[in-house]
Amino acid sequence: MNITRPTLILNKKTCLRNIEIMAEKAKRHNLRFRPHFKTHQSIKIGNWFRNFGVSCITVSSVRMAKYFMQDNWKDITIAVPINIHEIEELNLLAPNASINILVDSRHTAKFIAEQIKEKIGVYIEISTGYNRSGVLNYKQSKIDDIINILSTSENTVFKGFLAHSGHTYKALSKNEVQNIHFDAVLKLQKLKNHYKPKFPEIEVSLGDTPSCSLSEHFTGIDEIRPGNFVFYDLTQNSLGACHIDDIAVRMHCPVISRQRIRNEIVIYGGAIHFSKDSIQNYDSKPFYGRIIITVNGEKKLLNANCYLSELSQEHGIIKVTSNEFNHILIGDIVEIIPIHSCLTAQAMGKYITTKDEEIPMMYYV
Amino acid sequence: MNITRPTLILNKKTCLRNIEIMAEKAKRHNLRFRPHFKTHQSIKIGNWFRNFGVSCITVSSVRMAKYFMQDNWKDITIAVPINIHEIEELNLLAPNASINILVDSRHTAKFIAEQIKEKIGVYIEISTGYNRSGVLNYKQSKIDDIINILSTSENTVFKGFLAHSGHTYKALSKNEVQNIHFDAVLKLQKLKNHYKPKFPEIEVSLGDTPSCSLSEHFTGIDEIRPGNFVFYDLTQNSLGACHIDDIAVRMHCPVISRQRIRNEIVIYGGAIHFSKDSIQNYDSKPFYGRIIITVNGEKKLLNANCYLSELSQEHGIIKVTSNEFNHILIGDIVEIIPIHSCLTAQAMGKYITTKDEEIPMMYYV
Repeated sequence: MNITRPTLILNKKTCLRNIEIMAEKAKRHNLRFRPHFKTHQSIKIGNWFRNFGVSCITVSSVRMAKYFMQDNWKDITIAVPINIHEIEELNLLAPNASINILVDSRHTAKFIAEQIKEKIGVYIEISTGYNRSGVLNYKQSKIDDIINILSTSENTVFKGFLAHSGHTYKALSKNEVQNIHFDAVLKLQKLKNHYKPKFPEIEVSLGDTPSCSLSEHFTGIDEIRPGNFVFYDLTQNSLGACHIDDIAVRMHCPVISRQRIRNEIVIYGGAIHFSKDSIQNYDSKPFYGRIIITVNGEKKLLNANCYLSELSQEHGIIKVTSNEFNHILIGDIVEIIPIHSCLTAQAMGKYITTKDEEIPMMYYV
Repeated sequence: MNITRPTLILNKKTCLRNIEIMAEKAKRHNLRFRPHFKTHQSIKIGNWFRNFGVSCITVSSVRMAKYFMQDNWKDITIAVPINIHEIEELNLLAPNASINILVDSRHTAKFIAEQIKEKIGVYIEISTGYNRSGVLNYKQSKIDDIINILSTSENTVFKGFLAHSGHTYKALSKNEVQNIHFDAVLKLQKLKNHYKPKFPEIEVSLGDTPSCSLSEHFTGIDEIRPGNFVFYDLTQNSLGACHIDDIAVRMHCPVISRQRIRNEIVIYGGAIHFSKDSIQNYDSKPFYGRIIITVNGEKKLLNANCYLSELSQEHGIIKVTSNEFNHILIGDIVEIIPIHSCLTAQAMGKYITTKDEEIPMMYYV
């Protein structure tokens, strides 16, 4: 492989293993596996899931639903509160697939019930503590109102409740991830039990990557929607949700400058390649990635004292120890394990596999 | 204008005024104006500069040089230490334009001197305190070595010294910006004076947006290379380098959810639209943008208590006061002044002007 510029390299074998493990786990727990495709955003990678029996997917925008429908995905949940300005696109997509949308307000429910021209599945988004969107789980009168509004149209089919426990990403231990997940399971179970007499087909959908990787408690849950696990990243590793070896993507970047006085290596590779997402390092400063170098033909993961410490638009600065500094020369290609693989993939727009195969992504703009 | 999704709106009038003011300032100080085009990355916007007498530009990658050469830009400085893996592209571009590159090491200087097949201008990058790339200004023997290496080839024409005082972005006051800039001016003056007897044509190039906006001290400097000023942003505003009204780009985003219990508004617009660059708010927490809403047809800039506080991949959370909460409804389009216009533009990939004209950008991947 001839790398001359920042390049996102995908290890297909690791990626397939990640998919297989999660698919097996879903099967073991009798859960529908509806992976979130916002992480990879690629028809080609999406296709790899089919070999593991996947036929239902999650996406994060109407456009992404449209993109994957090109490859014959027919059962798609758009897992953000639906944007009422996209009703026309939704009316165009709905006849050609089973589309599920999310609502978390009377206003949007009414708008959709009045304007949608085709059958569409509607989940009420529940906030189980993440505090982003969603109806708080105990707001029963609001939930009842939304269900009543949806029932005014034959096209808005109330499917059940959906939640995303994004606060697992701020957990300080595996136990905390598991507690957050378990709390969400209980909240969704309670809602499901309450509405089941009236809606016997009701379903509840849950499952971020940390929870799905670490927990074995899914009683009462019907489907899981993890996304990031397909690649994993340093954020997941820091949560204990994966090993370093499970991370399937690495940025490969040329070294363009060395600053011996500060033991710093400057790479071609910046905020426009990695994104500016960061996590805290052991020294409590934000950092942007861990480093793998090649010494005498062997790959070597540098310890946590060496890390991507700063990102300009197109440059990055790697802090290393004085010992490692001598092993890294101008023109070397260093490998960087990204903090947030979803945003890095989005920024890069395509993958090259370790077998030198190019994998395109959805083009966004 | 019919906005249905996150859209980056450009006020051309404000943008032209920003260009004019900077072009006038350069003229007043007898400086060559070599604006950095990495902020807008658009042939169309690049063209606007021609009316202000601009014929020399700065870019941040070999690919960006190639992109602007399509529109007949003939004098281009690639202002990052040159990536030796791109020597082939450089050899293809060099016959068709005056290209200047940066080196900050003997290794790269030697590589270029040996491999470049066409005349190319070479600046030695000087670190004046930013601590990214560049030779420390007082490392005279290293500078001498690089100059000697460049002299071994007829094609590598030593042009002078170039510095970027990126540490102005961390300044806590206008005075501090001016001090950092003045310090860099003195360092470059000293180098210029030292080498002028041997290189009478020697030039020094300086000038980030904060310095160029705030300072009037450019004695001995030959050219300035600000970029961000074309749009400005909240970072520049927080440094005192521009007024809010000078900021030429705003994200327009639909409201998709309201969370009264927390006085939070959820928008369609997240990290993939804004980038995750942040600055500190008055409460010392990072934030991602300030908010403009439309009340009774009038635009209203909300005070600093209302701000874009969180970004997921496609959602953003706006914190507002309880009073403002009532003015913002689902389906409303709110306007957000970005923290870092370069990264937001890069993430969005195109502009729509306030007159509804679409302006494409360089396609990167």
